[in-house]
Amino acid sequence: MTSDEARRRFAESRVAHLATADAGGVPHLVPITFAVAGDSILSAVDAKPKRDVALRRIANITVNPRVSVLVDRYGEAWDRLWWARADGTARIVDGGAEFEASVARLRERYPQYETIGIIGPVIVIQVARWSSWTASTG
Amino acid sequence: MTSDEARRRFAESRVAHLATADAGGVPHLVPITFAVAGDSILSAVDAKPKRDVALRRIANITVNPRVSVLVDRYGEAWDRLWWARADGTARIVDGGAEFEASVARLRERYPQYETIGIIGPVIVIQVARWSSWTASTG
Repeated sequence: MTSDEARRRFAESRVAHLATADAGGVPHLVPITFAVAGDSILSAVDAKPKRDVALRRIANITVNPRVSVLVDRYGEAWDRLWWARADGTARIVDGGAEFEASVARLRERYPQYETIGIIGPVIVIQVARWSSWTASTG
Repeated sequence: MTSDEARRRFAESRVAHLATADAGGVPHLVPITFAVAGDSILSAVDAKPKRDVALRRIANITVNPRVSVLVDRYGEAWDRLWWARADGTARIVDGGAEFEASVARLRERYPQYETIGIIGPVIVIQVARWSSWTASTG
């Protein structure tokens, strides 16, 4: 799978997994909804109920911007498994034109955002590397 | 969702996502097959084709044992989303009784291991905390 194909498969998925780490290198992992725009991944803190008001993903990115984001397909036929991963650097954007454009893009992609508000900042990830794996060698 | 319920849902899932980080705090993320035994999660390096012979998950755990492992359900009905997460410390086990027992447990859980060999070490994660999130408050 080429880097372009990895990005295409990534962009078409509906859910991804975001790994961050704190200043001491302790990893943290959450599922995210997202949109891909060029070599950026956009995700927002929305009004789906959260475990913590001060989200760890935001706190981690503030002290350590390196992130890894993964989409994958699992099934019992292991010769059809694949994943695509984006490694890069994240920024927190909490207002302004970039925030508004990101929110618009996410609303366009997920009709659910018509009823669930985007209440928090947007995470903008600059992807340095798209990589992928597929079980089939053909 | 209680800690026990989080562990139960986690244990029933067929795929999880493993986040590790290197010595500099750069996160890394891969899907894994696994089995839960008490407060341990077992996963193995198997013969499914890999991108790298020297796996980054193994290298990271060697220098930084902290890991985060997530299972989740995504669907377009956002009021039925949930995830369960295990945070803990990982060890690499490459032989002996614990290795053999872990491999047996994984083979029992995944019939696919009848045809795909377990070639590498086993990762044994001691879970310090089972946590979870569910969109429905009911």
